[in-house]
Amino acid sequence: MSSFILADHPHRRFNPLIGEWVLVSPHRAKRPWQGQQEEVCVDDRLGYDPSCYLCPTNERANGAHNPDYKTTFVFENDFGALKSDTPAGKFERGGLLRAESERGICKVICFSPRHDHTLADMAVADIRNVVDLWQQEYEELSKVDFIHYVQIFENKGFIMGCSNPHPHGQIWAQSTIPNEPAKETTQQENYYLEHQKSLLQDYLSLELQEQKRVVYENASFAVVVPFWAVWPFETIVISKRHFQHIGQMKTEEKDAYADAIKRITSIYDKVFSTSFPYSSGIHQQPTDGKEYLGWHFHMHFYPPLLRSASIKKFMVGYEMLGSPQRDITPETSAEKLKSFLQR
Amino acid sequence: MSSFILADHPHRRFNPLIGEWVLVSPHRAKRPWQGQQEEVCVDDRLGYDPSCYLCPTNERANGAHNPDYKTTFVFENDFGALKSDTPAGKFERGGLLRAESERGICKVICFSPRHDHTLADMAVADIRNVVDLWQQEYEELSKVDFIHYVQIFENKGFIMGCSNPHPHGQIWAQSTIPNEPAKETTQQENYYLEHQKSLLQDYLSLELQEQKRVVYENASFAVVVPFWAVWPFETIVISKRHFQHIGQMKTEEKDAYADAIKRITSIYDKVFSTSFPYSSGIHQQPTDGKEYLGWHFHMHFYPPLLRSASIKKFMVGYEMLGSPQRDITPETSAEKLKSFLQR
Ligand SMILES: O=P(O)(O)O[C@H]1O[C@H](CO)[C@@H](O)[C@H](O)[C@H]1O
Ligand SMILES: O=P(O)(O)O[C@H]1O[C@H](CO)[C@@H](O)[C@H](O)[C@H]1O
Repeated sequence: MSSFILADHPHRRFNPLIGEWVLVSPHRAKRPWQGQQEEVCVDDRLGYDPSCYLCPTNERANGAHNPDYKTTFVFENDFGALKSDTPAGKFERGGLLRAESERGICKVICFSPRHDHTLADMAVADIRNVVDLWQQEYEELSKVDFIHYVQIFENKGFIMGCSNPHPHGQIWAQSTIPNEPAKETTQQENYYLEHQKSLLQDYLSLELQEQKRVVYENASFAVVVPFWAVWPFETIVISKRHFQHIGQMKTEEKDAYADAIKRITSIYDKVFSTSFPYSSGIHQQPTDGKEYLGWHFHMHFYPPLLRSASIKKFMVGYEMLGSPQRDITPETSAEKLKSFLQR
Repeated sequence: MSSFILADHPHRRFNPLIGEWVLVSPHRAKRPWQGQQEEVCVDDRLGYDPSCYLCPTNERANGAHNPDYKTTFVFENDFGALKSDTPAGKFERGGLLRAESERGICKVICFSPRHDHTLADMAVADIRNVVDLWQQEYEELSKVDFIHYVQIFENKGFIMGCSNPHPHGQIWAQSTIPNEPAKETTQQENYYLEHQKSLLQDYLSLELQEQKRVVYENASFAVVVPFWAVWPFETIVISKRHFQHIGQMKTEEKDAYADAIKRITSIYDKVFSTSFPYSSGIHQQPTDGKEYLGWHFHMHFYPPLLRSASIKKFMVGYEMLGSPQRDITPETSAEKLKSFLQR
C-alpha cells in the first residue's frame, strides 16, 4: 500500500489559530472549469475623479466636503453598520432567541489622494503613512470606553464588494469581540498558558526553518502562506517580535511592516497580471482593558482568485455547510507567489 | 433616552446551533449601492442539451455514458474532492503543523432528466423521488465502515459556483465530521443533556408561537427565516417531529418534505423574478455509530441575493475577519418571502 503524501492525497489540516479544519484535495487542481468567470475590469481610472466621494475636495453623501488631503484621510462612515449612540438593551425568548444591542464606530481611511492607485502602486513611504494612521486610530479608539475591539480591514476590488475603487480601507470598532478574533483569543491564550510563548512565535519559527511556505521576510516581518490556508493564495503577515497590538509597534517595525505590505500586494498583482482583489485585515488584542499575553499581532490577506484574473474559488455548498475546501496546496501557492518576488 | 428596538438599532444575535454571533444593522438597508452587479442570465436552456454531461445518454468526462434515466440518476463524481482509496497517514511538526489523511466518497445526483428544470419547476412527486434517493444514499453510505458523516447539498446558479445548470446536487461523505456539523453536534447534544429535548424542537415551538419568521408550514415541516440568519433570505427547513436523520423519515414526512422544498424554492424564484441562486444542504447526525439524542434533522438554504437579481450580499472584509453581518432584519425578510406564498 502506498504511503500518505501531503502533495498528492486528500487530507485535512488543522488551523490552531481558530481551532478549525480545512479540507485539501491536491489531485483536484486538474479539474476543468466550465463555470462562472468574473469580469476583468480594465483599469482606466484617472488620478482625480470628480464623481468620487473619496477624492480630495469632493462632496460626500452627508454634504460635507473632503479636505484637499495630500497623504491619508480618515472620517466616520456616513453609512456605518455600527453607531455610537445605540441605546443599550437585550432581547430574549426561551433562551433560544437572543439579541443584544451593539455600539460602535465605523470609519473610512483613504490611503492616498490618488484615485488611480492601490497599496501595491504606492511608495513604501506612503504606505508607512497608512500604518501610522492605523496605529493612531487604534490608540485613540482603544481609549473610548465602550470600544472593546477594533477591526481594521480593506476590501479591494469589485469582486470583494468594494463599491469605490479609490484606495481605502475601513475600521469597525465595537463593544464586543467578533467571532473570529474571539476564537483566536481562546486559542492563543490557551497556547500561552501551556507554553509561556506565543502560538504564532512558535509557528513562525517552524515556517522559517522549513522554508516551504515563506513568501517574503524582512528584519521584523514574515509573509507566509499558512499551513492551514483556506483561500488559494491566502497569506498571513506575522511580526517577528511578539507584541499584542499595533500601538506597540516600533519605528523600524512600522517601516518593515510597510515594506512587507508593499511586497505582498505587488506580488499579488503579478500572479495573474491583474490588480488582485482581496480582503485583508489586522488581528490584534481586544481593547477591553484586559491583559492578553498570548495575542500576537498579525494581518490576514484573503484573495479569492484561483486560476486566473477571471476564475475565483467558490466557497459554497460544501464549504458553507461543512468545512472550507481548497485544491492547490499551500506549498504550491507559496512557491508560485515567491517566484514573482524578483520579477 | 430611547429604548432598544430590534427593527431599528444595530445589534448582534446569537446562533445557538453553532454558538456564534451575527451582526445586524437594520438602519443600513437604506444605503445606496454603487458596487458590482451580477450578470443576470437569460434562461434559454433546452429540455435536452447534447453537450451536457448530466443529460440522459450523454458521455461523461471519464468516457462512461449516462443511462436514459427518467427520474433521478446518481453516480460517483469523476472529479471528487475525496477518494475512497486514500492511504491512511498523518503529518505533524511541533504540534502546530498538523494534517491527517481523509477518505471519502463524492457523488452527483441528477434531480431530473430535464436539463431546463430546477427543483422549483419540478412537480412535488418528482421532488419526492429526489428525497427517496437522498434517503437511500444516506442509508447506504452510513453502512460504509470508513464513512462517518454524509453531507448532502446543492449549489444552484453560476453565482454559487455551479458549473452546470442541469438540476443536480452532490453528496460528500467522509471519515471525519466537518466543522459546521461538528459545532451543531456540540450545541445540540449539550442542549439535550440539559433539557432532555432537542434544541430545534424548542426553537420551532417559539417560532410557531411568535409567527414572525415562519414562511411556510405543513403537517410535518416548517420553513423559517432563523432568528440568527446570516444571508438576507436564508431559511431553515425543520422537521416538526424530532428525529436524527433522513433514514428515519416516514412516508408522509417525505411527502411533506418534498412539498416544503417545492414551496420555498418557488417563493425564492418569485422574490426577484429570477431563478434564485442558493447553496442548500441537509444537516443530520453523523454516521459513526454513536448515539446522538440531541441531533434534529434540518436543511439550510443560503441564498446570496440581497436587493435584486443582480445585487448580492458580499461576505467580505468585516465578515471574514470579524463576524457575519446583515442589514435587512430576518423579520423583514420573512415577511417578504411570505408575501410571495400565494402569488
Ligand atoms: O463540485 P463542483 O460543483 O464542480 O464545485 C463547486 O462546489 C464545490 C463544493 O461546494 C466547491 O468546492 C467548488 O469551489 C464549487 O465550484
Ligand atoms: O462598507 P462597504 O464597503 O460599502 O461594504 C462592503 O464591506 C462590508 C464590510 O465587509 C460588507 O458588509 C458589505 O457587504 C460590502 O459590500
